[in-house]
Amino acid sequence: MEQLYRGKQSIVFPRRPTVIAGASVVGRKEGEGPLGPEFDEVTPDGKFGEKTWEQAETKFQRTALELLLEKAGLELEGPDLVFSGDLLNQCVGSSYALRQTGIPVLGLYGACSTMAEGLLLAGAAVNAGYARRAAALSSSHFAAAERQYRFPLAYGGQRTPTAQWTVTGAGAVLVCAQGKGPVLSSATVGTVEDKGITDANNMGAAMAWAAYRSIRSHLEDLSLAPEDYDLIVTGDLGRLGSALVREFFGGDGVRLGERYQDCGIMIFDPETQDVHCGGSGAGCSAVVLASHLLPGVESGRWKRLLFCGTGALLSPTTVQQKRSIPAICHCVAIENND
Amino acid sequence: MEQLYRGKQSIVFPRRPTVIAGASVVGRKEGEGPLGPEFDEVTPDGKFGEKTWEQAETKFQRTALELLLEKAGLELEGPDLVFSGDLLNQCVGSSYALRQTGIPVLGLYGACSTMAEGLLLAGAAVNAGYARRAAALSSSHFAAAERQYRFPLAYGGQRTPTAQWTVTGAGAVLVCAQGKGPVLSSATVGTVEDKGITDANNMGAAMAWAAYRSIRSHLEDLSLAPEDYDLIVTGDLGRLGSALVREFFGGDGVRLGERYQDCGIMIFDPETQDVHCGGSGAGCSAVVLASHLLPGVESGRWKRLLFCGTGALLSPTTVQQKRSIPAICHCVAIENND
Repeated sequence: MEQLYRGKQSIVFPRRPTVIAGASVVGRKEGEGPLGPEFDEVTPDGKFGEKTWEQAETKFQRTALELLLEKAGLELEGPDLVFSGDLLNQCVGSSYALRQTGIPVLGLYGACSTMAEGLLLAGAAVNAGYARRAAALSSSHFAAAERQYRFPLAYGGQRTPTAQWTVTGAGAVLVCAQGKGPVLSSATVGTVEDKGITDANNMGAAMAWAAYRSIRSHLEDLSLAPEDYDLIVTGDLGRLGSALVREFFGGDGVRLGERYQDCGIMIFDPETQDVHCGGSGAGCSAVVLASHLLPGVESGRWKRLLFCGTGALLSPTTVQQKRSIPAICHCVAIENND
Repeated sequence: MEQLYRGKQSIVFPRRPTVIAGASVVGRKEGEGPLGPEFDEVTPDGKFGEKTWEQAETKFQRTALELLLEKAGLELEGPDLVFSGDLLNQCVGSSYALRQTGIPVLGLYGACSTMAEGLLLAGAAVNAGYARRAAALSSSHFAAAERQYRFPLAYGGQRTPTAQWTVTGAGAVLVCAQGKGPVLSSATVGTVEDKGITDANNMGAAMAWAAYRSIRSHLEDLSLAPEDYDLIVTGDLGRLGSALVREFFGGDGVRLGERYQDCGIMIFDPETQDVHCGGSGAGCSAVVLASHLLPGVESGRWKRLLFCGTGALLSPTTVQQKRSIPAICHCVAIENND
């Protein structure tokens, strides 16, 4: 029997499953950001024609899935398997987006790490022969997240300097056994880390240690150095959290430099868009992956990229109960296949 | 490349991953039910020594995991991978139970189908060689679920006749590449079904169609008949939902008879325990699997068993928004290996 685990947390994909397509749909603010022209669709309407923000989030996911299948030339029932999840209580964004599609669904909860978790599992499923085509799908919605996690928007609550702005949008990717596109070569499953941070407005700091731990495990498990990647990108640590990741690696004598970036920083312009520490939300890394990172690997801009989804695993209830914030980070290595 | 998918929704595990251990810990009411003597641990304290019900649910999961590893003769960091999830918002039961264990974790959301989803993925991971040992873990807590999904207990709300009683407890299973125990031979991933039911106190009915669809797909995909199983057991449809499953199969001219049972019915005594339609919650099928079904397969009482986890994918927000209830059912075939 072929053993595909390596070291303590990592697995390899010798059959190099291929990401044949990615699709993204975002809200107005994301469309006005630096990556605006790269998204497949931008809707100026935060409710996307629906009655509620939660229903809008469902429509974002459904639209991302439909765009994905259109780009891949498949019917709605095209994928053999979809891995999906989101930030809404009981992941209703995903469940409602996928109902009556006839697609087999495995639901995930990984907070903002969901796209990395889904990509990892889609790659694993295709590499093992459980599916010919597996999709990963995730989303978030600024207004739905604010009222669920913090305050109803109508309260006009003041945001703290360490706060991040939840991305409105959904991203989807399709992993296939054959085809043209970037390939998945390995992945590292995260452990649940908790450094005792209790400030729910400082999730970047809560997630930074988990990101550092998983990236370090990835490099150790697979005997790699940061220089083996042209880009190491975390999900949505924002400015504060990503500075902490640099600091943790600095403590090991490792300078990450320009090689390291963060989706939460890439998606908004700090000069013109008032987002404090940057973007966040399960949709953030999903839309940056689908619109910007995958095309960059495909074009050869980055030959090898490590996509590190980061998630803060708190709930409003645990915050009220004054418990600290656990976090997780899953990594997937994506390579140019030329 | 070996293809392990069959038909539209099913996969096979030719390396027959083995469930080498199961563990369960439950509350007082579950301990007083018909399966009471079979659980590994019964705690009379609904808070399990913790300050809140949510923290108690975390302790149930952590305890189930520790019991499991003890039974399997492993250290805490023994599994290569854990698949976990629960019903609390943002699945905090699982995340807090697994923090600082050092175990790689992939978080799931499948509502009450979580144990079946976790067992399916643990089997898939071991069969493919991604892990030598993979655990699945899930829980629910009556009091935490009532206040999150319905009313705070202190309101003394009246329960409707179709209501089910959320099980307090956690179950865990360990799937290994080698060892002694029942083996996993195949599985069917569910699709998200919605028959338009909007009554959140009648989740058995909402889930029944999903159960029927997945079981039928399982049989079709793998060219099997119900008679190929000694027991087909759904997660927690309760009395009403499981009667509907019989009716749907009856419409196809298939009589399920005694061969079909439901974990939600098995766990409580309708004569002496006031639970209306039966048990429910992600912990229900998890503890029945770990304490009753796996030992029954191992002893040869059932040579072939189909474990069908059922989940209602609603949230309190979608109920308030008057949306109907989507549901899912994942099936895993478990066989005696003698």
